[in-house]
Amino acid sequence: MAKVLLSGMQPTGKLHLGNFEGALKNWVELQETGKYDMYCCIVDWHSLTVDAEDTSNLVDRIYDLAADYIASGLDPGRTTIFVQSAVKQHAELHLLLSMITPLGWLQRVPSYKEKSDTLNLDNYGFLGYPLLQAADILIYLADVVPVGKDQAPHIELTREIARRFNFLYGETFPEPKALFTKFAIVPGTDGRKMSKSYGNDICMGDEPDEIRKKISGMFTDPEKIYKGDPGHPDKCAVYMLQQIYNAEYKEICEPCKKGQSDWGCVKCKNLLADMIIDYFADFRNKRKELLSDKSGLDGILRRGADKARQKAEETMERVRKAMKLYLS
Amino acid sequence: MAKVLLSGMQPTGKLHLGNFEGALKNWVELQETGKYDMYCCIVDWHSLTVDAEDTSNLVDRIYDLAADYIASGLDPGRTTIFVQSAVKQHAELHLLLSMITPLGWLQRVPSYKEKSDTLNLDNYGFLGYPLLQAADILIYLADVVPVGKDQAPHIELTREIARRFNFLYGETFPEPKALFTKFAIVPGTDGRKMSKSYGNDICMGDEPDEIRKKISGMFTDPEKIYKGDPGHPDKCAVYMLQQIYNAEYKEICEPCKKGQSDWGCVKCKNLLADMIIDYFADFRNKRKELLSDKSGLDGILRRGADKARQKAEETMERVRKAMKLYLS
Repeated sequence: MAKVLLSGMQPTGKLHLGNFEGALKNWVELQETGKYDMYCCIVDWHSLTVDAEDTSNLVDRIYDLAADYIASGLDPGRTTIFVQSAVKQHAELHLLLSMITPLGWLQRVPSYKEKSDTLNLDNYGFLGYPLLQAADILIYLADVVPVGKDQAPHIELTREIARRFNFLYGETFPEPKALFTKFAIVPGTDGRKMSKSYGNDICMGDEPDEIRKKISGMFTDPEKIYKGDPGHPDKCAVYMLQQIYNAEYKEICEPCKKGQSDWGCVKCKNLLADMIIDYFADFRNKRKELLSDKSGLDGILRRGADKARQKAEETMERVRKAMKLYLS
Repeated sequence: MAKVLLSGMQPTGKLHLGNFEGALKNWVELQETGKYDMYCCIVDWHSLTVDAEDTSNLVDRIYDLAADYIASGLDPGRTTIFVQSAVKQHAELHLLLSMITPLGWLQRVPSYKEKSDTLNLDNYGFLGYPLLQAADILIYLADVVPVGKDQAPHIELTREIARRFNFLYGETFPEPKALFTKFAIVPGTDGRKMSKSYGNDICMGDEPDEIRKKISGMFTDPEKIYKGDPGHPDKCAVYMLQQIYNAEYKEICEPCKKGQSDWGCVKCKNLLADMIIDYFADFRNKRKELLSDKSGLDGILRRGADKARQKAEETMERVRKAMKLYLS
């Protein structure tokens, strides 16, 4: 039987190149191997842990993410794409798991301490975030979860909770494994890690004009002030992006290093913009097409939720039985 | 429109006289006023906060509680009697409310600190207990909740959460009021408050033999050692129960005080046992009848859950809309 793979993102708005390179591109590749029964979730309940106080554009963000998923190559025919809140079983499992999860396990999750301080978050649901994530994963009896290294503690917690459940109520959940895939580090326009919260992101769905404008404003090598100055590509965010999106990136390395008069940063940025605009041309068209037909997207998400719900309910029937609950 | 009333108990096993006098008897009286749309819940998920590790007899405890409810006079035709876990919407609302409930609100609930110490409970669900209770109450848009004084902070928290929700998303929930009803304090067989955890309880469903045996072993006035010694009824647990279950309790006060040779503790206990056995005779029969037909009880609970679920889902539709969630 194919291994079950669960992945998900919060609907925080249009995805950027960092999201694509770090996650989505891998998911599409994993889909193409044909080795996995793939569930790809839009975790809208999770996004409430951070922005419950302003949900005014949550629905638009969900459509954006669904379109980003599909336009990137996730195929609703092969990958179950759905909105978390459409499968209520996640909430039930989350509640049941909350009864066997020590507070300390949640308080020790590194991202909790970190984010609760920086984002000033103190709601009960935010502390329970990794528990809801565990429910998301376990409810599909997932074998693997493709994540970045920063998410490793969440997967470890999920495994701990699965073990505890299995110990108390009998073998029910497999222990999911984190699937770390290699990916390029994507710098934002200011040279830091690309992140929506830094405001340094280039989105896959950005219009060519926007892409060009963002790239033209990028930080380059601070030691290369005049066109003739020798550059240091290895310290330059533009060059890092060239390495990802320009197959012939090596050719511009020497002219930059030498400070050649026919190769300046403006030209380099223009080339990069051309490359990125071109790279995502099909994506942009597909994305626009999808977003122009919301009821079509609704249909895709509904079919995905129906399929996910069936699997989730099957699991819950096993869970309720294992826990010896009253079966109404 | 009739006011909505929500009440509930954990399925911890057969109810005792303290549960009856302190809660259930009042609920039946409230039902008889005809003034309320009554929802009476068996909160099985709540019981998991304490005993998730041993659920072996949870289903039996649920049947016990359902039978106790109905045999006491709660009428499934007029009062919606149901099992919490059969109405999954409670879990969904609990999760949504968790996103707007500061941890501090939960940590400050007096029963949390108290019980987490004495019962050594530290799971995430136990901290969220009052939040789940808030969801239980708010999901029926309850106006009143009959509770003891010890539960007052929970109702206050529920009101706070309702206010916060209404502030963020628009008027959705009424602020429920605690309904404090007067009731007799019921001593256990050792003179302390009657409580299952003290092992000093007399159950409504106990057989006559058991009742007689428990009462014969009761502590009485420690200063009355011999039959002829003068007694102090105001310090005697047996007399406190006489005041509740013997309409002519006053007549035994003087003989006891005087240490009359024809009135000793054994006689007094026998009389009390007769009274209690008689008081709950109809109850016992009804209870046995109900428990002898589990599928009949299942039917009652199923019809109750169907009705509760309909109301709960109506509320959830309003909640999801108010929160501007994606409506699948």
